[in-house]
Amino acid sequence: AGDPAAGEGKVAVCAACHGADGQATAPIYPNLAGQNAEYLVSSLKAYRAGDRAGGMSAMMTPQAQALSDQDIADIAAYYSSLEP
Amino acid sequence: AGDPAAGEGKVAVCAACHGADGQATAPIYPNLAGQNAEYLVSSLKAYRAGDRAGGMSAMMTPQAQALSDQDIADIAAYYSSLEP
Repeated sequence: AGDPAAGEGKVAVCAACHGADGQATAPIYPNLAGQNAEYLVSSLKAYRAGDRAGGMSAMMTPQAQALSDQDIADIAAYYSSLEP
Repeated sequence: AGDPAAGEGKVAVCAACHGADGQATAPIYPNLAGQNAEYLVSSLKAYRAGDRAGGMSAMMTPQAQALSDQDIADIAAYYSSLEP
């Protein structure tokens, strides 16, 4: 299962667009604060697998490919734990 | 631009998973309440174009393909207007 505290230490790159507090830094990016962890895992794995084109996938695919299953679980747990 | 009031009348199908109030009915689906409209438009257009595989795309692609640009703008404006 994901560890929110570990996830907090892994979101430095994510935070440039999604915010350290899960509030996106520009409206083309999704807010992540309070988002369902299960969905965040599903979407990060879809990006990692190269399943998502369009949108911001040119940015997200390589970022997701740098993440292990545990990294994904931890990051999802962290953002999910934040107040929306 | 999107019209939240018009969007409210177009989310009957979306609401089965994402909730009429934008709170997902199961954790594999994303909450949409208060999500950035610009991001929602981008993701719906990616689904509509067939750019997103994996995840829940088998459900989302045909749903998005039933939507016009105005429908997408209205639905995004509606969900974005809700309290997270």
